[in-house]
Parts: sequence; C-alpha cells; structure tokens
Amino acid sequence: MALTGARKWLNEVIFGTDTPAGKLFDVVLIWAILLSVALVLLASVQSWWVRYGEVFFVLEWFFTALFTVEYLTRIYCARDRREYIFSFYGVVDLLAILPSYLALIFTGATYLMVIRLLRVLRIFRILKLVRYLRDANILARSLWQARRRILVFYAGVLVLCIIFGSVMFVVEGPQHGFTSIPKSIYWTIVTITTVGFGDITPHTPLGQTIASMTMLIGYSIIAVPTGIVTAELAHELGREKQLARCHNCGRAGHDADSEFCKHCGYRLEEFEPTPSD
Amino acid sequence: MALTGARKWLNEVIFGTDTPAGKLFDVVLIWAILLSVALVLLASVQSWWVRYGEVFFVLEWFFTALFTVEYLTRIYCARDRREYIFSFYGVVDLLAILPSYLALIFTGATYLMVIRLLRVLRIFRILKLVRYLRDANILARSLWQARRRILVFYAGVLVLCIIFGSVMFVVEGPQHGFTSIPKSIYWTIVTITTVGFGDITPHTPLGQTIASMTMLIGYSIIAVPTGIVTAELAHELGREKQLARCHNCGRAGHDADSEFCKHCGYRLEEFEPTPSD
Amino acid sequence: MALTGARKWLNEVIFGTDTPAGKLFDVVLIWAILLSVALVLLASVQSWWVRYGEVFFVLEWFFTALFTVEYLTRIYCARDRREYIFSFYGVVDLLAILPSYLALIFTGATYLMVIRLLRVLRIFRILKLVRYLRDANILARSLWQARRRILVFYAGVLVLCIIFGSVMFVVEGPQHGFTSIPKSIYWTIVTITTVGFGDITPHTPLGQTIASMTMLIGYSIIAVPTGIVTAELAHELGREKQLARCHNCGRAGHDADSEFCKHCGYRLEEFEPTPSD
Amino acid sequence: MALTGARKWLNEVIFGTDTPAGKLFDVVLIWAILLSVALVLLASVQSWWVRYGEVFFVLEWFFTALFTVEYLTRIYCARDRREYIFSFYGVVDLLAILPSYLALIFTGATYLMVIRLLRVLRIFRILKLVRYLRDANILARSLWQARRRILVFYAGVLVLCIIFGSVMFVVEGPQHGFTSIPKSIYWTIVTITTVGFGDITPHTPLGQTIASMTMLIGYSIIAVPTGIVTAELAHELGREKQLARCHNCGRAGHDADSEFCKHCGYRLEEFEPTPSD
Repeated sequence: MALTGARKWLNEVIFGTDTPAGKLFDVVLIWAILLSVALVLLASVQSWWVRYGEVFFVLEWFFTALFTVEYLTRIYCARDRREYIFSFYGVVDLLAILPSYLALIFTGATYLMVIRLLRVLRIFRILKLVRYLRDANILARSLWQARRRILVFYAGVLVLCIIFGSVMFVVEGPQHGFTSIPKSIYWTIVTITTVGFGDITPHTPLGQTIASMTMLIGYSIIAVPTGIVTAELAHELGREKQLARCHNCGRAGHDADSEFCKHCGYRLEEFEPTPSD
Repeated sequence: MALTGARKWLNEVIFGTDTPAGKLFDVVLIWAILLSVALVLLASVQSWWVRYGEVFFVLEWFFTALFTVEYLTRIYCARDRREYIFSFYGVVDLLAILPSYLALIFTGATYLMVIRLLRVLRIFRILKLVRYLRDANILARSLWQARRRILVFYAGVLVLCIIFGSVMFVVEGPQHGFTSIPKSIYWTIVTITTVGFGDITPHTPLGQTIASMTMLIGYSIIAVPTGIVTAELAHELGREKQLARCHNCGRAGHDADSEFCKHCGYRLEEFEPTPSD
Repeated sequence: MALTGARKWLNEVIFGTDTPAGKLFDVVLIWAILLSVALVLLASVQSWWVRYGEVFFVLEWFFTALFTVEYLTRIYCARDRREYIFSFYGVVDLLAILPSYLALIFTGATYLMVIRLLRVLRIFRILKLVRYLRDANILARSLWQARRRILVFYAGVLVLCIIFGSVMFVVEGPQHGFTSIPKSIYWTIVTITTVGFGDITPHTPLGQTIASMTMLIGYSIIAVPTGIVTAELAHELGREKQLARCHNCGRAGHDADSEFCKHCGYRLEEFEPTPSD
Repeated sequence: MALTGARKWLNEVIFGTDTPAGKLFDVVLIWAILLSVALVLLASVQSWWVRYGEVFFVLEWFFTALFTVEYLTRIYCARDRREYIFSFYGVVDLLAILPSYLALIFTGATYLMVIRLLRVLRIFRILKLVRYLRDANILARSLWQARRRILVFYAGVLVLCIIFGSVMFVVEGPQHGFTSIPKSIYWTIVTITTVGFGDITPHTPLGQTIASMTMLIGYSIIAVPTGIVTAELAHELGREKQLARCHNCGRAGHDADSEFCKHCGYRLEEFEPTPSD
C-alpha cells in the first residue's frame, strides 16, 4: 500500500532516516529515551525520591505523554499497522508507556517502574540505522554461529558445578555456610567464574584444596568460550572484508587484509556491506 | 551374537535412537534424570526437607524403582552383558540407584545422597546420540590436543603459587591470616586466578605490593591457556569443515570458510561428519 | 625557521635523542619524573607526611624548580613556541609544575597534589623515541581498528547491566543492600566483570539464581572483547612484518613468519619500520 | 675432558637419562623433592608442628643429608666443576641444603625454611629431559617473543592504575578506606585485574561510578595480553610443526596441520624436534 499526504511524510520522518526531519526526530528521540531512563534510575534512589518526588512525577508524565503520542503516530503512519503492533519494537514501545497508566490503577509501583527501563531497548532501533549496525552484526553472527558450541560448553560447566558443589556441601557442611546443595552450587558458580564474592568461603583444609582445584579449572576453561568466539570472529572479519564492495568502483572480492581496492586503488576503510549481506 | 524377539526390540528402544519408541524412551529418560537430580538438590535444603520430607522420600523411591527396572532391563538386553556392566555408563547406572538401597542399611544418608547426583552424567549418554555431539567432540579434541601444554602451564602456575605463597607467609605472617604456607598457597591461588574471595587479605604495604605483582602476573598468564585453546580450536574448526562431506553430492575437501558445496552448490550448513571422523 | 647557536644546541639536547647529551638528558629526566611521582605517592601516606613532612616539602620544591627551568627552556628553544605550548605534552608539562605554585595561594592541597601525578604521562614522550614505540603502536592501532566493535560491545553490556540490575533491585530489594537501581547496576557491573567485591551479595534463592546467570553470561561475553582484539592484533602483527624493511638490503615484503630476509639472508629480528609506517 | 671409571658412570646416572640406572635415579629424585617440599609445607602448620615436630625434624635432616650427598656427588662427577657450581641449577642445589645447616647457627628458622621451597625448582631440571620440554619451550618462546609488547602493556596498565588510584583517593578519601595514594593504587590493581577482594570498596555514588568504569576498562584490556599471546602462540605452533622431522624418514617441511608425513605417510604425532631447534 502506497502512503500519501501527511501519513507518508510522517512515515518518512518517524521510520526513515534519510530526510533532515527524520534525522532530527531520531536525535530528539534518543535524548528523550536516555533522559527518561535516567529519570527512572534516579527516582529509585530513596533520598532523591523523598526530596524531588513531585519533579520526578511531572517529568515521568511528560515523557509518558511524549511516548504515547509517538506510539499512536507510529500506528497511524505504519505501512502495515498489524505488523508494527505485534513486532518486537511495537511491543517494546507499548511496554514503555503502559506502566505509567497501570500505576494509576494498581499501587505496587516498584515492579511497574522497572518495566519502564525496557525503553532502553528502543535505542537499538535507531542505532540499527547507522553504520555501527554492521559491527554489531558481525558480533551477533559470530555468537550465533558458535551457539551450539557455547551451549555444549555451558552444559559441561553446569555438570561440573553440580558435582563440585555437592562435594563442597559434603566436605564443608552447613556450619561453614554451605547450607544446602543449591547454595553450594551457587558458590561453585561464583568461584568457577572467578567472581569470588567471599560471602561463603571454605574453612577446612580439604575444602580449600577442592576450592583451589575449582579455581584452577575455572581459570583454564574460561579459555574455551574465548577460543570459540575468537575463532568465529576471525572467520567473520575475514569474510566481511572479502564480501565488501569498493565505494568507488563497486567491485568486491578483496583480500581480508586489503587497505585499498585492488581494482581502482580507492581506500577501502569506508566499506559498504554488499546487498546480499 | 544376534539378538532376537523381545530382547532385540528392547535393545533397539533402550540403546538405539532410530525408532520412534527409542526416541520416546530417550525423552522420558532425560526428564526422569533431570527431575530426580532436582529432587536431590531440593531435598538438601533443610527447611524444605522438614516440611516436605515424606514427599521427597516417596518420589526418591519412585525414581529409584524406575532406574532399577531400567538398569536390569539394560543388563537383560545388552549385546554383551559383561561389557555393559563394567563400562563407564554401566557403573554410573549402578551408582545412580545403589545409594537409595544402601541408605536402608547405613544411616549417614548425606554422603550417599550426593552420589545420586552422578545421575546427571547419564544425560551425556543420551546427548551423545544427537548432533550436539559433534560440537562437544571439537571442544574435547582441542582440549586433548592441548593437554601437554596445559599440564606444563599448570605445573608452572603451581610452582609460582608455592613461591609467592611462601613469600607472603613470611611477609604477612599468622597475625594477618596467613597462618601456614599451605594456607598462603591457597590465598595465592585465589589471587592469581583473579577469584579474590577477600577472606584473607594483605595488610602490610610490602604484602600489598607483592599481592599487586601476583595479580598482574595472574592477569597476564590467564592469556596462556586462552592462547593454547584458541590456537587448537581454530585449527580443529578448520579441519572439521574440510573433512565434512556435502549432504547432497557426498564429496569432501571444502575450504574452511565455504558456505556452499564447491561441487554442487548445496548449502553446507547441515554438515555430516565423515565416517572416519 | 632554522635555529642557531645556543638555542639550536638546547633544542637538540632537550627535544632530540641522537646526541650523547640528548640521551643523557632523557635518562636524567626519566629518573627525575619517577622520583617526583614516587614523592607524591609517599607524601600521601599520613604517617610519613607527619614524620618527614619537611623533607617532602623541600624535595617537592626542588623538583618543581627543576621542571620549571625545563619548561621555560623548552619554550625558549622550541621550533614553534605557540605549537609547543598548546600541544598535549606542553599542557602536561605546565600541569606538572602549576599545582605547586597554586598551593601557595590556595590551601586545599590534596586535589592539587593529585594533578602532579600527571607527570607520569611525561614518561611517554621519552619512550616515544625508543624502539618500544613500535610495539605500543601495534597495540594502539589494533585497539583503534576495533573501536567501533568495542563500543557496540560496551553498549550491549550496559543495556544488559541495566536490565539485570533493575531485576535484582526488584528481587532482592533494599533490605539486602540493593537500595536503588543505580546501586543494583553497580552491583551488576561488579558481578558481570567477575570482580565480585562481596560488599553487596544476593541472599534470596531467586536472587542467587539470577546472580548465577549474570556470572555465567559475564564469563562468556568476556570472550567477545578478547576475540575482537585477538583478531585485529593477529592481523596487525602479520602486516607489520610484511611492511618491515631488512636492515641490510632495505627491501620489504617478507612473509609474516620469516626469520631471515629472503633477499640477502640477514636476520630480520632487528626490524626497522618502513618510512610510510 | 673425557671422564673415566666410576666418575663416568656416576655422570651418566646423575646427569643422563638414557641408562636404566639414570632413569631410576630421576624417578627417585623427583619423589624425594616432592616429599621434602610437602614436608616444608606441612611443618608450617602450627598445630602439626606442635604435635609432630620431632618427626618433621628427623625427616628434614634425612632429606638434607640425601641432597647433600647428591650435591657433592654432582660436583665430583661434573664434566666442568666450576661451570656446574655457578650454573643456575648448581646454585639452586646449594640453596636446597644450605638453610638446614644455617638453622644450626641462626635461630630465625622461618625465613630459612621458606628458602628450602626453592627445591621445587629442581624438578624442572629433570622435566627438561622429557618430552614435556618441547611444549614448555613453545610457551616460553611465545612469551619471550611477546616480551616487549607485554612490557608496553604493563606500563600502560600501571599509568592507568596511578591515575585512577589517585582519582579514587580524592573522591572517596581516607574515611572509606582509601587512606593513601599507594593504597588507592593497590585497590585499583585489585579492581582492574578483576580480583576484587572487597577489603576496600567505594561508598559514594561518584566513587562507585568511577569504580564501574575501572572494571569495564579492566574487563576490556584483559583482552590485550590474551591477544598478544594467542597471536604469538598460533605462530609458534605453526612453525613448530613445519620444522619437525618425521620419525620414519627424517624429512621436515610439513604443513602446520599435517597429521601424516607427506613423504612416507608415517603418523606425525610422535614428533622429534629438529636438531637446530
């Protein structure tokens, strides 16, 4: 369906990024999102809420009104309204304004307030349109390619944590903070990931020996996801450059380490992803 | 020995995965294992045991009965009974049911309970049969190839920990928690692996300087296992793809970064490991 | 403008490194910088300041006088005085001496004292002139090449921290130390980077489960910057060697793993960067 | 000088590994070293020393006597006595027995006891002779190749720690544990290496924000040493295999990923380093 008149213009401004008005709209929206997220963060600080509660309240309704108008306009000027409403960003847009209205009905404001933070996801829609996208794509594709290997790795780590956790439960016991097997497994995860809060620590020599083994194993297997991701990433980076087309002559197929187009000598730094990408 | 009749059918269902009944059996078994493991974990929480002790008791005997029947059936229909009983998974299968029976005789139930968690290892037998196996194989083979280098690395780290640990024992001494050399070595391992519980911390300026050196060294040598595994993994991933056969035409020898078979153009994502693999 | 007489000689000594006097000046300056930085560090220890306050005071004015003379001489003999004064190192040189003079006027010495530590940056000017520079260049160029990918990664980590932080705020609440969403986000960053201070720890089973997920995710995504930097670094290292010229015959274009010049057999370890580098 | 008679035989047994007697001697020595090191570790535990002090005393003198006899025999049968005594292992051999004799004269046994732990270094002499050596060599050579880059990296991290440490000293101040700049730098190193003891933690919102930045930077730059080592290690591993000679036909020059000798088809896993290696 071809849009016409005001609806077409609104669509270009809100969904597009090519016109000056569309670019301005994106910049304003990013700032509105960042400010409203900062607002939710600061409002959660007890002392600030007590002092500036009214200011927070007014500003929150200002942003809610703004995002409501934006949401309704998006529905109005969308090419396919159904598709937009049930798309990922359509749902996020709704979740960004719904909590404020629901807070009028329900009183448990804390949980609703947190949902507002999903607004931060809206930033990605706008970033999607700029050149940072391609780098995000490489990362995402690498992680996606490695998904099965990462899952297998996680399964192995979890089984290791269950076994070490239950051994520590038997060795240290409730008197040293290892009150149950799930808690021991929590401790093992804290230790094997090298986080080491120190809220629970082994006190017996045997427990400390097993803990040392856990740490050294954790230290070593941290290498596995790194190896997986590095291998995939190096592969993706190489492919990316080979697929890229030169800005000047439009030809692709360059070596992974080329700095200049091999056909016309144009500097290749300003890549453009190929359409098939 | 060729199996016949009921024994052959049972063998296909229990050990195989090709028939619908075999697949159903695997799915039921995975759930039974996961539930019985969750049961052991929850039963170790004191407050839950007090409240739902009887439920846990009944469910535990239900799963023990189930796994006992499964174990006896496996013995009955195994191609080579001796081999099965003394195989790794045969022993795990026995250990998964034995603790419940032994708990009838002995009273120290805690230690026996933990052995039941070895049931979690049984999941790997089933996973062995699905495609996740190949990715697990690549990881395992990479780690196996790197075993000597990793051992040398561990030996070096341990000698480093012994030397730093004894220096810290001399510098900080018992009054700051470094009560013995083994405990100082435990602290050094906690520090060099960047876990950092904080149960023992240096208090003298000299001790803090040595601790800083330990951390910076630890920060740097964490790179060594990562480098070892990454180098092996990149090598294995390359070989894997080269060895893989195309699903369509059955020919191998593709480049490490091919997306499509170079002989027939069929998409290569759905790899099949070569028989020699 | 060609410098003549004393000014030319001073310029060669202070800005250059080729003459014996220039080398001596650099060595003396490095020691003066290191000693004056050590002085500031030690003067901040309360007990030392009380005891040796006067010694610190005298030494501080000695170094201030030294660096003031050096600064004025640099202005005097600089090829372009304006350019030097407003260059990065010109400003650092001024900041290295200004605090001592300002402390005569203002009394809040603590903040001014810290600015003196910027003197440590002056070391890089001297190091710039030695061969360590090339290795620093490779690291800097790799990080610069990867800047967009690293920014995208940081944006993703921050969004993850905001979401996990607010979930932990709801789950654990103020009674377990999660007093506000910003503090919860601080805790999430402490956890996801595997630092794990342990000043705030989850106490509810649900909170510990979410914390475990946070750690395992952090454990896995630590692989992403490593993968990015490794891929770039491997690329830079390869290019570096290919571009390098042989010391003996001056020809470039060697393979990345060559140990000897392929034209004249001269050992390649003593590389010289190509002029275009 | 050619050795003859008993001296030649002793030299073969003690310094060599080719004769059965030489192999037996190495195995006995490794066990004696490990036991004597374990003895020193256990003797440092206060409660054990009180109870088994006499047993420790007797065993310690037994090992001292054993190592003294070994040391004297090594001097007797060394090819070049001067060279052996002043070699690295010659000094370690002396340090391994000296503390026991000095303890007869001086009473401060704690410090002397710790020197005995240097015995652990003697294990490396024996390991040097087995095949694990080659893998240790690859690691050592990779780290050595990367020494300049690692030093540059450490210099950068230290400057970062000085700057962040002094900022935290100003922001948090002595009332929150940041009592001096050196202590703040210690805290920054603890944080940037993701160790995170938690003995000192920021309490002000601004301090926590700066701490978060420190952690995220630390999280990212941990990638740099990993990248350096991985790039070097991958290079070394490739070269190692290319240089290796086939056990069967003795020819070298295989591809980095060859499993079989390309000249005679012999399995290449049992490598032998080339003489020039």
